[in-house]
Amino acid sequence: MYRFLLSSLSCFLLLSSLSAQQPVLLYQTDFGLKDGAVAAMKGVAYSVSPRLAQYDLTHEIPAYDIWTAAYRLRQTIPFWPAGTVVVSVVDPGVGSNRRSVVAKLRTSQFIVTPDNGTLTLLAKEVGIAALRLIDEKRNRLPGSSDSYTFHGRDLYAYTAARLAAGKIRFEDIGTMLDPASAVLLPYQEAQIKRDSIQGNIPVLDEQYGNIWTNIPQIHIKQKGWKYGDTLSMSIRKSGQLVYSGKIVFGTTFSAVAAGQPVAYLNSLLNLSFGVNQGNFANQYKVSSGPDWSIDVTKVQ
Amino acid sequence: MYRFLLSSLSCFLLLSSLSAQQPVLLYQTDFGLKDGAVAAMKGVAYSVSPRLAQYDLTHEIPAYDIWTAAYRLRQTIPFWPAGTVVVSVVDPGVGSNRRSVVAKLRTSQFIVTPDNGTLTLLAKEVGIAALRLIDEKRNRLPGSSDSYTFHGRDLYAYTAARLAAGKIRFEDIGTMLDPASAVLLPYQEAQIKRDSIQGNIPVLDEQYGNIWTNIPQIHIKQKGWKYGDTLSMSIRKSGQLVYSGKIVFGTTFSAVAAGQPVAYLNSLLNLSFGVNQGNFANQYKVSSGPDWSIDVTKVQ
Amino acid sequence: MYRFLLSSLSCFLLLSSLSAQQPVLLYQTDFGLKDGAVAAMKGVAYSVSPRLAQYDLTHEIPAYDIWTAAYRLRQTIPFWPAGTVVVSVVDPGVGSNRRSVVAKLRTSQFIVTPDNGTLTLLAKEVGIAALRLIDEKRNRLPGSSDSYTFHGRDLYAYTAARLAAGKIRFEDIGTMLDPASAVLLPYQEAQIKRDSIQGNIPVLDEQYGNIWTNIPQIHIKQKGWKYGDTLSMSIRKSGQLVYSGKIVFGTTFSAVAAGQPVAYLNSLLNLSFGVNQGNFANQYKVSSGPDWSIDVTKVQ
Repeated sequence: MYRFLLSSLSCFLLLSSLSAQQPVLLYQTDFGLKDGAVAAMKGVAYSVSPRLAQYDLTHEIPAYDIWTAAYRLRQTIPFWPAGTVVVSVVDPGVGSNRRSVVAKLRTSQFIVTPDNGTLTLLAKEVGIAALRLIDEKRNRLPGSSDSYTFHGRDLYAYTAARLAAGKIRFEDIGTMLDPASAVLLPYQEAQIKRDSIQGNIPVLDEQYGNIWTNIPQIHIKQKGWKYGDTLSMSIRKSGQLVYSGKIVFGTTFSAVAAGQPVAYLNSLLNLSFGVNQGNFANQYKVSSGPDWSIDVTKVQ
Repeated sequence: MYRFLLSSLSCFLLLSSLSAQQPVLLYQTDFGLKDGAVAAMKGVAYSVSPRLAQYDLTHEIPAYDIWTAAYRLRQTIPFWPAGTVVVSVVDPGVGSNRRSVVAKLRTSQFIVTPDNGTLTLLAKEVGIAALRLIDEKRNRLPGSSDSYTFHGRDLYAYTAARLAAGKIRFEDIGTMLDPASAVLLPYQEAQIKRDSIQGNIPVLDEQYGNIWTNIPQIHIKQKGWKYGDTLSMSIRKSGQLVYSGKIVFGTTFSAVAAGQPVAYLNSLLNLSFGVNQGNFANQYKVSSGPDWSIDVTKVQ
Repeated sequence: MYRFLLSSLSCFLLLSSLSAQQPVLLYQTDFGLKDGAVAAMKGVAYSVSPRLAQYDLTHEIPAYDIWTAAYRLRQTIPFWPAGTVVVSVVDPGVGSNRRSVVAKLRTSQFIVTPDNGTLTLLAKEVGIAALRLIDEKRNRLPGSSDSYTFHGRDLYAYTAARLAAGKIRFEDIGTMLDPASAVLLPYQEAQIKRDSIQGNIPVLDEQYGNIWTNIPQIHIKQKGWKYGDTLSMSIRKSGQLVYSGKIVFGTTFSAVAAGQPVAYLNSLLNLSFGVNQGNFANQYKVSSGPDWSIDVTKVQ
């Protein structure tokens, strides 16, 4: 179970964070890497403290795609130790009245982000321990007051770097907010039915064309399905059937011959589908998003 | 004003650089990240000193596009502190008799680069305090003398790393050159006319399709144009009208409804145009480069 | 000669490694950078030790392309000092019975990888000093035992980080294996014939469209061919002639006019072909791989 993986991890990470000496910033944006935007943010952070380690989650979130930003945080942040400060800037509303916040997770990482839904999955699956509004008067890159369109540089990277470097405390960010007030995107959790499990496809494993569902290992266990069983699967887009077929449930791709479809648990321990050394998404024209639902039963 | 932003920044960066302990290299190339070229450079630099922090500006400068290289340096280097050493390798003339130089900026960052126009905008807008020719006899990766086509690895990264790590001083680079001798690309600055401001489009904000002009905030102020005013804009390619329209001047995208065009000051405080949550460049077939000019007036 | 370059380099790198204080991980994968896979690996490694420096070779190896992974290692690892720990994850057989190994090179870098051919060119051209099987019982991310499809995170990054950070020794990896047992991909070395040199095209210099052959400088020297000579070249795909032409052998691109083809020694000191400021591969429809052979003679 992913939860078990997380709790075992947490011991390991807690020990790690005690010995940490080089504080760390982790960036996620939809900026791409073609221009200087990411480097400007890192320059600001390096200027705050050259001791900071600066890492990239990804800068290839599709432009304005808050849902994918939320998913990537949920996918990776559990593998970073307490004290990690994350800057996430997918910000279609930059300069509007959307709030700028810092969330402290139950597992003690910090997320610096526009409050636009980016926190959805972390809030739900990890938990927000505390939330603060960034006070732009106190926490803004000196000299940047005429700049309204690059909060990533002027507000988020600057504030995150100062927090990571210990130049400000979490309390200095700004007013305390109710964690329950964080903006959440609507989404449907997977559900166990009498004969089936119903879920959706939050994201693709794009590089390989694997289908990642939101059906957790615990649901599979509850149904009593085991490796070696054959699953019958229907994938629908807006209710229209796109794919149906019977697929072996294996530990990994090589449970089936090259070119054959396989069901497996992905690295987040969610039910997933792929083609061994192939591309399921391309082959069967399956994609991801709120329109895509999935229905799985076990073949008797 | 960008100048003001820069001067306020400079205090902040000066203080930062005094406390800097981990020297830093910043890379810009047109190599892309598909192969091992960037990693070979970083290996050479790491071998010079494992203490160096190594960052990327971008490796996706379009192949041989010196102008864009010049623009990206101008966009980002002001956000890195004094002492930062930058390696910029967009080098269509590698192995020819173009010079290899290290420029020390007025703000005390160092740029290690072929002298082919890459320094154009930094020279103009930040200023070169001193320029030295790289003495290839003294400053070349040991064992690389039969390699003529990868100065990025054999000459620039090696020299930059030794400079950043304090293994050589700026004086050890080679002969002093006249800063005014740096090769500059021709370009036209924005001009204030009686009724309008004329400028050009040096670069796109590609990820979002925004149009970045070279018209600075100070020109807008001089004209007395204010947020909330409506601007009338004509964009021409080689003199042919491509777009004309009336656009509200707002602080940021959300000054207009989603899908509507807006004029704003970008993160360098230059006049820019975009579509809120859309893509101006795609929608109106506008691109950037020396052929593209722009003419702006205020609607009375 | 590349060998000479390497031996001169090795002195330099040996001295460097003696003074190294910040241990280093270097990553190569076919994961791409769109999702969170790379960041999850780096989080695991950072959690093992925040002191580690973490660098990327590339994450854009074409999916499942073990040959290219092998080539990129051979291209770059010689430029990283002894003690560097490399994680290479191009792993079409993840979860199958392919072995997971750590190779210690003759030059004392470590490669953590599935044993699927990734070591081919390093084994041949640098040499494997020792090989160990990763004992998954002892060397696995705590809590990850239900995860079968992400050895990059759960096994390789975790083990590599612990090795680099000195938390385990090479001896703690697992059983010693015969270095000669490493899986090697079949490939044909370049050969000197009476009138010609025959070789193949292991890889393209993709960003610029240059053709990199496997014909080493030493073969050219043995033939007595010199800069300024004209070479006659035939390129075949599966025996079918794709290109033939006469090309000047110069030190670098600018030995010919812009738009003209040129033969030169690349940064690995292998015979290569390009078009000055152009793209040879696109212009003449030449690609790389086992099907592509090349035959070079000198024009008298």
